[in-house]
Amino acid sequence: MLNFEFKNPTKIIFGQGEIAKLSTEIPKGAKILVLYGGGSIKSNGIYDEVMNALSGRQVYEYGGILANPEYEVLLGALEIIKDKEISFLLAVGGGSVIDGTKFLAAAAKYDGTPWDILSKPIRTLEGEALPFGTVLTLPATGSEMNSGYVISRRKTNEKRSSSGPGSFPVFSILDPNVVKSIPQRQLANGIADAYTHALEQYMTVISDADLQDRFAESVLISLQNTAPKLLQQDFDYHTAANYMWCCTMALNGLLQKGVVTDWAVHAIGHELTAYFGIDHARTLAIIAPSHYHYNFEYKKEKLAQYAERVWNITEGSLEDKAKLAIEKMEAFFHSLGIKTKLSDYTKDYKGTAERIEQAFIDREWLGIGEFKRITPQDVKKIVEMSY
Amino acid sequence: MLNFEFKNPTKIIFGQGEIAKLSTEIPKGAKILVLYGGGSIKSNGIYDEVMNALSGRQVYEYGGILANPEYEVLLGALEIIKDKEISFLLAVGGGSVIDGTKFLAAAAKYDGTPWDILSKPIRTLEGEALPFGTVLTLPATGSEMNSGYVISRRKTNEKRSSSGPGSFPVFSILDPNVVKSIPQRQLANGIADAYTHALEQYMTVISDADLQDRFAESVLISLQNTAPKLLQQDFDYHTAANYMWCCTMALNGLLQKGVVTDWAVHAIGHELTAYFGIDHARTLAIIAPSHYHYNFEYKKEKLAQYAERVWNITEGSLEDKAKLAIEKMEAFFHSLGIKTKLSDYTKDYKGTAERIEQAFIDREWLGIGEFKRITPQDVKKIVEMSY
Repeated sequence: MLNFEFKNPTKIIFGQGEIAKLSTEIPKGAKILVLYGGGSIKSNGIYDEVMNALSGRQVYEYGGILANPEYEVLLGALEIIKDKEISFLLAVGGGSVIDGTKFLAAAAKYDGTPWDILSKPIRTLEGEALPFGTVLTLPATGSEMNSGYVISRRKTNEKRSSSGPGSFPVFSILDPNVVKSIPQRQLANGIADAYTHALEQYMTVISDADLQDRFAESVLISLQNTAPKLLQQDFDYHTAANYMWCCTMALNGLLQKGVVTDWAVHAIGHELTAYFGIDHARTLAIIAPSHYHYNFEYKKEKLAQYAERVWNITEGSLEDKAKLAIEKMEAFFHSLGIKTKLSDYTKDYKGTAERIEQAFIDREWLGIGEFKRITPQDVKKIVEMSY
Repeated sequence: MLNFEFKNPTKIIFGQGEIAKLSTEIPKGAKILVLYGGGSIKSNGIYDEVMNALSGRQVYEYGGILANPEYEVLLGALEIIKDKEISFLLAVGGGSVIDGTKFLAAAAKYDGTPWDILSKPIRTLEGEALPFGTVLTLPATGSEMNSGYVISRRKTNEKRSSSGPGSFPVFSILDPNVVKSIPQRQLANGIADAYTHALEQYMTVISDADLQDRFAESVLISLQNTAPKLLQQDFDYHTAANYMWCCTMALNGLLQKGVVTDWAVHAIGHELTAYFGIDHARTLAIIAPSHYHYNFEYKKEKLAQYAERVWNITEGSLEDKAKLAIEKMEAFFHSLGIKTKLSDYTKDYKGTAERIEQAFIDREWLGIGEFKRITPQDVKKIVEMSY
């Protein structure tokens, strides 16, 4: 097991009716800025629930933080924060709104150009950000219980991330009833996203961190079992609750402690979102199978363990099991209604591999993936395999 | 899934050589009281490692906090804390030293009689205790990453507990190398203790909290796999690390969130320690099998799930699997060298069932276990079955 540090101070408030606790969780006298996305919270009742809990408080609001939150859009909120001397941020949304809020919390107390936080990047230490809470409306990214965030700058096709011990939400309210109004496409994305988060922390080398492996496998199995019920049935509270908690646990830091992690799927997938606007989760489903095939020799032992423990594949050689594991994984994405080839999403895919290779060269990234083994040239081949 | 709140702010610093980080983790200028147990840390090198990390700091020390930490012993430390105006406590030890330190942290800032904290009990809120850190020397209780503590008062044969959001360690340093010098008897106890912690949060009713169930099963399987390597081989760092992390994760709050928990095994077991001085972990191994047999009708579905997922028992009826599961559990305790009958520990066991029944009646505990279903009369029968 590798040495590690783990601290996650976010208070999770989980369950039905818990949005009402906003009234006591946000400090008295706070000047609150409520941040949200495209406005669906106004039609599904969550906006009203939040505002009722905040009645009598000093509340401002800023909507329009859409998927792959945009730096320029967030600068609009930053102006309000400074003008109104906001002291507490409340994200009401999914990963994009929460990521945007984390960036704003750091930017509000940063003296230089806000883009520095993302481009250098600068780690935000405890006390160096405005305090913020979240009301999660779309389980997927785990942003509600970690300190990481990803922000896009469309004019330069850049997608950059930052994090730090000061960027954890003070609290996050997770009411599974929010799942009722989530379109099926986004539920499928949420499952694929959380599933890939677990994979990125697991599908590397055979680990001596037995418990972490088993926790990752638990998340994978639980998401597999939950997915068909979530997508095919009428709303079931407990199915929604398990989906929601799986998404949080997949990326709250626990699975990755003491083990070698990968994250190449995300690094490459982000480029596909930047170029084509493909949903984040779907870029992961495009890249993951090619990535595992391309790096088969390095990952085959772990793929075989995944085959055995997650898919109950007991027959065949280690290689057979490992190959079948990738097929099973890809079939799982298909079962969510998610296609796994770039050409399923755009006819304009030719040259993408070269563009992404160049992007990695330009950024002087020497390598990605476990042990930083994957070069820009490898990335090119992985993307080609995903056409 | 039941509604729940989860917040665990303890910073875990895990790995070899990490004790040196004490020099930066404890605030500058702190007046530090180092608390420890019977003095084994002076022979195994941990004391020196701690003191080296604290060199140049204002350090006092207080040893002699033994197993089942004693209220009267702790009052001696409380005097030093007040006399010397100690501002930071450092527990160097196992669950007993850490539990004692939690009590002292709360008592240091409490104005009334310290026993109130345990007898009422009083929940310690954030900021209502002295800050404290831990260097874990004996993995078992999980006290290094939770807020609970149990203190004994021998003259009245009482064992009382308390907890609260202000009773979490600020940090805990977990260096698996400490396992090298732990006697086998205590390693066996540690495994049995952590294993029973997972059971108490799991062996109740069939749960719709799928992920929590799988996490609990992960801890159980991982402890089962780790135990023979830990007990029979020469020191292996990664085995020690996995054992250590399993113990922490078994009782840091995560497994019990959203599910129905039991804790009757602990409630009854504590009485056996109070009367006979039997090691805490061994009292759990005495009570657990009888408890599960006695409550078989209520627990058989979950016992069967445990049989299938943890022990790979696929044959037989649900009842067959559930019964075999209890046998497997008892055999696992035996494999640790831990006997599971009260008569294995004392010849003086007659009348114990009646004494414990009376103790529960006297305390006006209406019921223990999930749904508070177990009456003092049930307790009597469970203890009789354990003779």
